[in-house]
Amino acid sequence: MISQECYELGSKSSVIREIFSYGLKRKAEIGEDKVYDFSLGNPSIPAPESVKQAILELMELPPEKIHAYSPAPGDPKVRTAIAGSLNRRFGENFRMENIFMTCGAAASLNICLKALLNPGEEVITFAPFFPEYRVWVEGAGAVLNVIPAKLPDFQIDAEAFERAITPKTKVVIVNTPNNPSGVVYSEETIKNLCAILKKKSEEYGAPIYLITDEPYREIVYDDIQVPYLTKYYDDTLVCYSYSKSLSLPGERIGYIVIPDRIADHEHVAPAIAGAARVLGFVCAPSLFQQVVAKCVDDTGDISAYKKNRDILVEGLQRMGYTCVKPQGAFYLFMKALEEDAYAFCERAKKYDLLLVPSDDFGCPGYVRISYCVSEKTILDSMPAFEKLMEDYRTNAV
Amino acid sequence: MISQECYELGSKSSVIREIFSYGLKRKAEIGEDKVYDFSLGNPSIPAPESVKQAILELMELPPEKIHAYSPAPGDPKVRTAIAGSLNRRFGENFRMENIFMTCGAAASLNICLKALLNPGEEVITFAPFFPEYRVWVEGAGAVLNVIPAKLPDFQIDAEAFERAITPKTKVVIVNTPNNPSGVVYSEETIKNLCAILKKKSEEYGAPIYLITDEPYREIVYDDIQVPYLTKYYDDTLVCYSYSKSLSLPGERIGYIVIPDRIADHEHVAPAIAGAARVLGFVCAPSLFQQVVAKCVDDTGDISAYKKNRDILVEGLQRMGYTCVKPQGAFYLFMKALEEDAYAFCERAKKYDLLLVPSDDFGCPGYVRISYCVSEKTILDSMPAFEKLMEDYRTNAV
Repeated sequence: MISQECYELGSKSSVIREIFSYGLKRKAEIGEDKVYDFSLGNPSIPAPESVKQAILELMELPPEKIHAYSPAPGDPKVRTAIAGSLNRRFGENFRMENIFMTCGAAASLNICLKALLNPGEEVITFAPFFPEYRVWVEGAGAVLNVIPAKLPDFQIDAEAFERAITPKTKVVIVNTPNNPSGVVYSEETIKNLCAILKKKSEEYGAPIYLITDEPYREIVYDDIQVPYLTKYYDDTLVCYSYSKSLSLPGERIGYIVIPDRIADHEHVAPAIAGAARVLGFVCAPSLFQQVVAKCVDDTGDISAYKKNRDILVEGLQRMGYTCVKPQGAFYLFMKALEEDAYAFCERAKKYDLLLVPSDDFGCPGYVRISYCVSEKTILDSMPAFEKLMEDYRTNAV
Repeated sequence: MISQECYELGSKSSVIREIFSYGLKRKAEIGEDKVYDFSLGNPSIPAPESVKQAILELMELPPEKIHAYSPAPGDPKVRTAIAGSLNRRFGENFRMENIFMTCGAAASLNICLKALLNPGEEVITFAPFFPEYRVWVEGAGAVLNVIPAKLPDFQIDAEAFERAITPKTKVVIVNTPNNPSGVVYSEETIKNLCAILKKKSEEYGAPIYLITDEPYREIVYDDIQVPYLTKYYDDTLVCYSYSKSLSLPGERIGYIVIPDRIADHEHVAPAIAGAARVLGFVCAPSLFQQVVAKCVDDTGDISAYKKNRDILVEGLQRMGYTCVKPQGAFYLFMKALEEDAYAFCERAKKYDLLLVPSDDFGCPGYVRISYCVSEKTILDSMPAFEKLMEDYRTNAV
């Protein structure tokens, strides 16, 4: 009688949340330090001190200067500061008009999809991928086509991608650094992707928009470069969030970049504002708009994640597990020791290792290990991973 | 080619925003104090000192305790604090499970509508009404039916309401204290409304949900009581926002009350969570969840609005204007001096009076005067209102 779609979305508890809830229960039973919870992508490093300083400085202003409505696309000074930062870092030439402030990456993506898509059109993304893409694409009445993961490096299978494009393909979503693989798409991957997009857009005489979802842009290791996609393909919309780089996931603050040179800019830019309106977003939270403008080039102390990654990858590979060394984000994508990743995660629970099966990411047979945890958790978990391996050696599936 | 619906919503600038922009330009030309801008509903009184104190206290906590993701329905302690406040104030018996934290009233309303409605179903509201209702109802694929205003008191025309209900009516929205009329629906109005809802729900054998949009609940004058609607009708969802009561409109923080006794609760409660998810809301901003929990029974200094109202009503009525004395909110709904409210607002501009024509509120022939401005603006504007009246006396339409 009520919306069946919403009921199903709300009643089907996410696997990740279920594991996390189990972890809380288990910690209460046997002690917090005995449970190795790698389920959530909640940043473990604190927001940088500059965030606190920014808030304290803003508290000196009259409250009506801080907490008032901003214009729907965001405070002009904030948008100007962000455009300036992107120009300095990526050699772009953005103005405030190219920046639309949002309530985080979920809002950024959903607004773009709602603005661009008509019912029946198609969106392509690449496994493994963030499961909410399907919710938002289908919420816009469109269809999500998933290109299988390219093994063993989790880059993009260009041939499979090209074959999947149809005249109905309106949008392609990439997420780099990738959740859940931790892989950064190489410049070669991006160039191939964009060449295909250009070719197919011309062939069909209609733009295919590239949406790049990049909350993990700043979380990369070993001097890896993450290509800035507007430099490679004109019809690119960038969806950003400060959730991970500034460790502010609960504050819901991010933006969309809408370059001037995007196809049909005169319709796309207003449609972004219209999509925000119909979804019920009035403006991005005003205090945190000001905060990110003051911290526009900052990040938390990423080195803690790098250390976690190194301990984890070295340890797991030594034990005989198979994984691609992550170049970014704070996820490690590891091959399960049996085909059924759910069964593998169940067996891991015996050793109080809480891992996320990869099926919802569109790439069965793996687990996601979120290593945005304390270094102690990583170190303490090593014997548990040993025991899990040993279990599979002695009790084959 | 892209979403025509979103393009149109984004390109059609709101009348209110246009008047506000004109005001900014005009102020730059002739001086800020010479323009009497009554266009926006942006609270003029500051957030109470307790908000600043709450933020400063929270800044003493480790950042990861403040800025982390909250569960999708909100922080349990925050929801418990809000339930407790409602129980104390309205004799209710809510638990945290009845409270779903949102990014403000727009989110609250849109989430409820999305959760309850199927395409083709009908929603009823009462003129004058907040124009975004139409955007969200139509965004859910449903149809908005507007019951004309009941003159002269702007209460609800019960007969017209009863006649408008059909088997497709799924939701009724009320907004009290009302934007733009400033009227509070009396207990008699509410009892009549709820009696009709009960009768018709029984007649059609299906619940009609009542959504009450009440960001202005605390902004009332002269000891007026605003009936708490869950006490009058079981199938009520309350949509609240702290934008006006705590003067935090930019921070996007509010909640939905989902009482246990609502019809089909076992589907409605998950559908609310599912609707938030499909719209792209992850959680309500985490710092301000904590702030409102600490300020749960506070408001800004409402007496400033009362003073503005009294000066304005007394002055305008003395000059010969017709208006209902507002009992709440910070809007005065005044009869235009000619049938075409747009033409009236244009003539008012000659005297640098910026008023909003009522057509978009579904009630032509009036203007909305937002008196959430400084007392000085109110006092200084009086001669301009005199001149406008004089203009109509000497230059009839």
